[in-house]
Amino acid sequence: MKQEGEIDSHSIAEARERIDAFVHWTPLMRSSAINKIAGCELIFKCENFQKVGAFKARGAANAVVKLPASQRKNGVATHSSGNHAAALARAASEIGIPAYIVMPSSAPETKKRAVKEYGGQIFECAPTLQAREEGLRSVVATYGAVFIPPYDHWDVIEGQATCAFEIFESSISLDVLLAPVGGGGLLAGTALAAHFFSPETKVIGAEPEGADDARRSFLAGKRIPLQQANSIADGLLTSLGEINFEIISKHVGDILTVSDKEIIAAMRLIYERMKLVVEPSCAVPLAVVLRNKAQFQGQQVGIILSGGNVDLARLPF
Amino acid sequence: MKQEGEIDSHSIAEARERIDAFVHWTPLMRSSAINKIAGCELIFKCENFQKVGAFKARGAANAVVKLPASQRKNGVATHSSGNHAAALARAASEIGIPAYIVMPSSAPETKKRAVKEYGGQIFECAPTLQAREEGLRSVVATYGAVFIPPYDHWDVIEGQATCAFEIFESSISLDVLLAPVGGGGLLAGTALAAHFFSPETKVIGAEPEGADDARRSFLAGKRIPLQQANSIADGLLTSLGEINFEIISKHVGDILTVSDKEIIAAMRLIYERMKLVVEPSCAVPLAVVLRNKAQFQGQQVGIILSGGNVDLARLPF
Repeated sequence: MKQEGEIDSHSIAEARERIDAFVHWTPLMRSSAINKIAGCELIFKCENFQKVGAFKARGAANAVVKLPASQRKNGVATHSSGNHAAALARAASEIGIPAYIVMPSSAPETKKRAVKEYGGQIFECAPTLQAREEGLRSVVATYGAVFIPPYDHWDVIEGQATCAFEIFESSISLDVLLAPVGGGGLLAGTALAAHFFSPETKVIGAEPEGADDARRSFLAGKRIPLQQANSIADGLLTSLGEINFEIISKHVGDILTVSDKEIIAAMRLIYERMKLVVEPSCAVPLAVVLRNKAQFQGQQVGIILSGGNVDLARLPF
Repeated sequence: MKQEGEIDSHSIAEARERIDAFVHWTPLMRSSAINKIAGCELIFKCENFQKVGAFKARGAANAVVKLPASQRKNGVATHSSGNHAAALARAASEIGIPAYIVMPSSAPETKKRAVKEYGGQIFECAPTLQAREEGLRSVVATYGAVFIPPYDHWDVIEGQATCAFEIFESSISLDVLLAPVGGGGLLAGTALAAHFFSPETKVIGAEPEGADDARRSFLAGKRIPLQQANSIADGLLTSLGEINFEIISKHVGDILTVSDKEIIAAMRLIYERMKLVVEPSCAVPLAVVLRNKAQFQGQQVGIILSGGNVDLARLPF
């Protein structure tokens, strides 16, 4: 596993090559209609088109492929109710090793089905963090599998950094680049990629008001874990990881929050004007831009559309 | 206005140049997940990303830009409750002439708003064909505007042909190319483009069972107008046009129908697996492929995703 200081421009470019067979180089899209509303030039990086429907495919693939043969052989494990579970199951399946996924019994059927489709083995547990951690310990002890956490992990962060790397490799010049922040894997990776490939680009984290531990931690200069989380952006309800906090403190320019109402309005614009299916978490950066139009006026603004795994029966409009 | 025999490979390529400033060269997308389900190699032409959210932008732009100055000056007119209304209003606005749109009072607010946003002037009428035609006659008499019909018109068909032209220009080799059929503008244009640029490609029309006049006309060798139409594919509830029928009879290989249940299942796959917002009409060709898997087994199959203008509050899932 990488240590701090070992991620640099060279290692991010290497990570992109390492995962090339496992992920898409996702397209960039623009919308003149949304530009007009926002008053700036928006460039959207479409990770909703990524394998498993979210950027998580990158970090999971990078972490799994980097494992030495001696560690790979017993498989990988994680606890997750979301996109990381499917991403890890898929990455493991691609290189022919087992994936053991501890999921809360309350996880949506669609998420469980996705993990099973990629050949992951599900272990259901009670829907508490304690039960998940116990479940994971038991799986790791039983099978000797390597735990790959969803965000608080150097190789996962290095993998997520390949997303912004692709933007900069496309010779796109950005004043600002926004990514949503939950555990901080994508935001930390994005900030590192900008630091090494486009230091003039300011990276901003976008967070729901109802789960604003990243903003509070960022302002306080120390991690303040979430006491409770309440937002429609169900991919962002986790506390910032430790490594993630260190990187974000150093390399992120700001973290801005928005209400669920603003998230839903931005999500609706993406559906109506861009014809893209995105999950609520994915709409948080656009909501931040629309709430702070004056700040972004006339700028070249990149937005990472993080994923498109949404329950169609529960769209908020 | 073009006459039969005047559309050829040269004129379609010219039309593409003529409308270049007004439309997108839309992307092609693939989905390994849907390929696995369908048992063939699908290539989707994403007209849901087109200006005004549908292929209709092409035909309207081509017809409007081709008008000589003497005819342009009093503007253009049509009656439509759908995408053609917005497309015509936008094309007219782009070249700075007025557009008069006769719309049934029952048309959805979103459609009216789209026409207004593009600067079109709306004349509401009772929701009958007779009232629409009377409204149109009155607008044409009052303003001296030129009537641009939605599909039964050579320049409109030539414009729609530029969509399949773009596929063949991308050096994509197809065994089959499917397009939905309502009035027949897109299907006729697609068939002409294949005839001139890829004669080995079989063009198939895809139609809802509840509005199957195109299939019945195709089999009978004469136009059989719809007596009644009932399908979720609200863009396809019109009878085949006259010119459209002539072209389709000559150059289309087959017309296949599907049920609304099959349309909804295909639409759901496009949302879930491709992360694309499409309207029900747009899912009809994929539904045809999934209903007739044996026929398409192992082939290279092109599908035109015709549009993405859907009422998000009324998604059928």
